[in-house]
Amino acid sequence: MEAPGRAGSVFLLTDYGDADGFAGVLRAVLARLAPGVTTVDLTHGIPPFDVRAGALALARAVPHLGPGVVLAVVDPGVGTARRALAVAVAVGGPGSGSGTGTGPRFLVGPDNGLLLPALDLLGGPRAAVDLGPGPAADPADPADPADPGPVTFAGRDVFAPAAAGLWSGVPLDALGPPLEPSSLVRLPPPHLVRSGGTLEAEVIWIDRFGNLQLAGGAPDADAVGLDGALVVLASGRTLPARRVRAFGLLDSRELGLLLDADGHLSLVYDRRPAATVLGVYVADIVILGSRT
Amino acid sequence: MEAPGRAGSVFLLTDYGDADGFAGVLRAVLARLAPGVTTVDLTHGIPPFDVRAGALALARAVPHLGPGVVLAVVDPGVGTARRALAVAVAVGGPGSGSGTGTGPRFLVGPDNGLLLPALDLLGGPRAAVDLGPGPAADPADPADPADPGPVTFAGRDVFAPAAAGLWSGVPLDALGPPLEPSSLVRLPPPHLVRSGGTLEAEVIWIDRFGNLQLAGGAPDADAVGLDGALVVLASGRTLPARRVRAFGLLDSRELGLLLDADGHLSLVYDRRPAATVLGVYVADIVILGSRT
Amino acid sequence: MEAPGRAGSVFLLTDYGDADGFAGVLRAVLARLAPGVTTVDLTHGIPPFDVRAGALALARAVPHLGPGVVLAVVDPGVGTARRALAVAVAVGGPGSGSGTGTGPRFLVGPDNGLLLPALDLLGGPRAAVDLGPGPAADPADPADPADPGPVTFAGRDVFAPAAAGLWSGVPLDALGPPLEPSSLVRLPPPHLVRSGGTLEAEVIWIDRFGNLQLAGGAPDADAVGLDGALVVLASGRTLPARRVRAFGLLDSRELGLLLDADGHLSLVYDRRPAATVLGVYVADIVILGSRT
Repeated sequence: MEAPGRAGSVFLLTDYGDADGFAGVLRAVLARLAPGVTTVDLTHGIPPFDVRAGALALARAVPHLGPGVVLAVVDPGVGTARRALAVAVAVGGPGSGSGTGTGPRFLVGPDNGLLLPALDLLGGPRAAVDLGPGPAADPADPADPADPGPVTFAGRDVFAPAAAGLWSGVPLDALGPPLEPSSLVRLPPPHLVRSGGTLEAEVIWIDRFGNLQLAGGAPDADAVGLDGALVVLASGRTLPARRVRAFGLLDSRELGLLLDADGHLSLVYDRRPAATVLGVYVADIVILGSRT
Repeated sequence: MEAPGRAGSVFLLTDYGDADGFAGVLRAVLARLAPGVTTVDLTHGIPPFDVRAGALALARAVPHLGPGVVLAVVDPGVGTARRALAVAVAVGGPGSGSGTGTGPRFLVGPDNGLLLPALDLLGGPRAAVDLGPGPAADPADPADPADPGPVTFAGRDVFAPAAAGLWSGVPLDALGPPLEPSSLVRLPPPHLVRSGGTLEAEVIWIDRFGNLQLAGGAPDADAVGLDGALVVLASGRTLPARRVRAFGLLDSRELGLLLDADGHLSLVYDRRPAATVLGVYVADIVILGSRT
Repeated sequence: MEAPGRAGSVFLLTDYGDADGFAGVLRAVLARLAPGVTTVDLTHGIPPFDVRAGALALARAVPHLGPGVVLAVVDPGVGTARRALAVAVAVGGPGSGSGTGTGPRFLVGPDNGLLLPALDLLGGPRAAVDLGPGPAADPADPADPADPGPVTFAGRDVFAPAAAGLWSGVPLDALGPPLEPSSLVRLPPPHLVRSGGTLEAEVIWIDRFGNLQLAGGAPDADAVGLDGALVVLASGRTLPARRVRAFGLLDSRELGLLLDADGHLSLVYDRRPAATVLGVYVADIVILGSRT
């Protein structure tokens, strides 16, 4: 039952939450179908149905992952015509086995834009297949062979079996008919505009500490000369701010612009939640400029 | 210290939550007493003391588990006369080792009804033992050998050591005196009544997405002719509804009756929380009928 | 890539929460840098920036851990002059490898008091090193070799690599210059005063169930004769209470004083949250005396 030669992990990211048993069943199915696998929970706390938040969270994590298979499910269209994907990453040669590259070799999830930003960071797709509705794990009516059974928990019934198979060495093309990689659904990028001496940037994530991660990174800040003393327009207010390298270098109640651990610009306070203090939400636009 | 030949996982389900260290200590005790074990967290988010919610969550998960040992703790009576159980599942032959069947071979937890629905699904009990109050892990007064030490964390001090032992091959009857399996505490079933052309069904679970899982499944719906256009009485209101196979097949703001991934009837909206929209809580009764 | 001979786990405790991907990335970095490692999440639910809560939670867990490495991060001073530590535990002989003792051999985390209570319970420090700011995992500006890259996620970029190294057998002194163990930052102890026939004790933790864990244990209660009928002054009210051994031995709405599973005195109700009922918060002082 063991598969000691199979390197790498299966990495999980969903909007299932931790309180219900959904994520637990996913872990159990992987343990059952891929004995010996290491499952690594990236997070199950993506807001319900928020595909973009899931795509961004996966993109933040993926540069730090070792070999294996990514299993990501934020899937409001489950059971409808949206496609179910398994994608092989372009880097790492022609093999179909996992675990020989330096990052994940396969990504599995719905075709709704969830996987694309992470896939781009990994080198783009080499090939993709359509997993279809999958075999029913628990047919509703065993007497009716035409009844495909429940279709509402594709994570358990379609995506986890596919991830377990890929981890175990099943070739990608054995999992379904090929798809044209360029046909995968892609979400529009977040708002980011350099204009004169200012940067208009969308808030793309608020973390547990209330820090505001923005679209854009160091090159964007440098291009409009954001260094030292700054001015920030957020939630209808204009506030002074300062570019710093660490939270603890800010004075009490001083707003900071930080290049965060993902390489993104971030508006922060020292030990205070910027989102709450400023009254800013995800998808709001903030404007950053130099203080003259 | 390794036990490479020991197949299967230890599956955890508790009401400990994820914020305190309770569940973490459980995982650590298992890693210490059963080196090499794979622990699979089903969930630690059962509402505090809610034995029935725990029993239902375990029953939802157990059809999907591979071999191993289930360790479930929702235990308001810890330290009192309630019995502590280890139960062997009837299926899978006479052996006392874990991991040779296709599902869990043993369940461990308090005798308060938590284990029975899952045990029924696995084939019922073959044998059961009383684990007793267990050895004290950290005696309060080492000078007093009569002091059994703390009795408030049986998960750590009684159930986890028993689960680690069973996973490692300790025979069930070495863990305590036998119990008559028919004496195990069983909770009353949820409310479910077919009456004329209607179905009265209790709401047994509200998931993260606000879906309302009901007592009853496809046979109950079929018996009263619930198909196509329906009417639902919930929280004092009468609402039209429609039986569908997937969330995404509902129109915006249309109430649906779905056969969910556990085979239960479920009242749902597409990307809206039915519990909030309808003002319905766990243990409420809803009435379903055909629209004429 | 596998390290089958490396016994023990890496134990994680942070204030990262479970919803963001922070803890997941920590797990992924460990899986990448220490293939085959078992990571045990103690908790990621320490309140943001609350070093003392983290130190107490770690001290509660550490007596129950097997061999391995503790990785703890509650780090408001990340990126500032606070030191980053790896500490070897005094017990277990002169070896630098992990996994040969009965508890963790190494602790890794910031030098802000987080590790000390756990370290004391393990036998104190044998040696400590300063990990420094660490190599940048993802330099912000590769063109500028003087730019050390992001400094805001030391868990990912400094502490996890150090923990992976120690687990894999890297000697402690290879990770940084030595520190004088007596120089490690230590938090002040919680308030605990025996005075006449009463005990003044600080509330040091409120768990998921609303139980109030107090500074002090059985010897403190015994020293002032707290047994049987008691009186408790909490939140400006004086209430009768009774010393009991288990929650379920209390009458409905009767306040109890319990020696809890960590050996601490605890104010509790049976299946009701004492914190809410009494209006008591962490760091409040309660006064306990005998009822005369």
